[in-house]
Amino acid sequence: MFGGCQKFIGGILNVVSHVDPGNFSPSQPPPPKRPLMYPQSPQNESDEERKFRQVFQQIAGDDMEVSPNELMNILNKVISKYSDLRTDGFSIENCKSMVAVMDSDTSGRLGFEEFKHLWNNIKRWQVIYKQYDADRSGVIGADELPGAFRAAGFPLNDQILQMISRKYSDESGNMNFDSYIGCLVRLDAMCNAFKMLDKDNGGSIKVNIKEWLQLTMYS
Amino acid sequence: MFGGCQKFIGGILNVVSHVDPGNFSPSQPPPPKRPLMYPQSPQNESDEERKFRQVFQQIAGDDMEVSPNELMNILNKVISKYSDLRTDGFSIENCKSMVAVMDSDTSGRLGFEEFKHLWNNIKRWQVIYKQYDADRSGVIGADELPGAFRAAGFPLNDQILQMISRKYSDESGNMNFDSYIGCLVRLDAMCNAFKMLDKDNGGSIKVNIKEWLQLTMYS
Repeated sequence: MFGGCQKFIGGILNVVSHVDPGNFSPSQPPPPKRPLMYPQSPQNESDEERKFRQVFQQIAGDDMEVSPNELMNILNKVISKYSDLRTDGFSIENCKSMVAVMDSDTSGRLGFEEFKHLWNNIKRWQVIYKQYDADRSGVIGADELPGAFRAAGFPLNDQILQMISRKYSDESGNMNFDSYIGCLVRLDAMCNAFKMLDKDNGGSIKVNIKEWLQLTMYS
Repeated sequence: MFGGCQKFIGGILNVVSHVDPGNFSPSQPPPPKRPLMYPQSPQNESDEERKFRQVFQQIAGDDMEVSPNELMNILNKVISKYSDLRTDGFSIENCKSMVAVMDSDTSGRLGFEEFKHLWNNIKRWQVIYKQYDADRSGVIGADELPGAFRAAGFPLNDQILQMISRKYSDESGNMNFDSYIGCLVRLDAMCNAFKMLDKDNGGSIKVNIKEWLQLTMYS
């Protein structure tokens, strides 16, 4: 009955020989979301940290959380200043997706710690992007992709890279900055999710239909 | 160590009390992809079927498969004729995503049977869309969503619907036609994937990191 489907999943699953989750270094996830209030500035806060809090409050506005729209606006405002990062601009779909995989209480918005976590990752990955864009084309070409992802903590094999490239790169195999960030945010979250669900480090996880649908439909 | 992550997954997983996979009726998946050639017309083919083959050949072109770009172009051409379906047009992200979840050999393109399967689903779901758009607004409102998804074979509970709505609806809770189709294509494929992987009908599936990454990063 599910012959076609078996083919679909089989096609996806059979292409890779071996992947060791221990090789991946996803980022440390943010602490749990606190009650809705602007976080107090700790006494020993640095100038940079205080400035970041102020920026967050400006972006988040009255509801004290960052919506996909607010995320899109700030990202597009920031990247417009970087002429060495080629991008079509962050789309609302991309931003919804990034918020979804990081959104700890399914509110559809990011709290302060989640936003800070995302922002720090983007900063780190942007440095890698420029570093691995060896030909200064403004995009990550197919030959530059393995090194960039390895540097970001994800030494992926060729088959997974090819699959990722098919979804996130254009027809010539080039990945622009908005796709690159969307892809890494998702990859990072999915590696973390796996590690969390794989409680005994057995290398596999068990999910029921409710978990499956929520993970695959929301994220 | 994965406290924040646990919160993320926990937040997603804990909101739903019970979901029975037996309640879902995903569409019958397409047969496995054949070698790359235009399918022979069977002798007893109806006029409609023959016409569909010709249309497919026109869309697919020389490589005999439909790329995300080709899918986007044909969908946007067709929906421009329906003034009663409100849409922003199908985006390339949406079409890449639809191709990815249906693409049995990870070629990044759809063969004839896959395309036919997708097309028939879209036709069926479009009828439901119009039927459940009770106020003729051209979009599926939050109150119309449960009925429409039930009619499509997916009697989802409120929490899953809310989560889906957060990703696929706009800020007023309205789902337009392109998002609705993108969402159902994915839901249908994910229900089928679960049923296929749940070989003993035990209600849960076991996946390793390689399967996990391929399913969550490509689809």
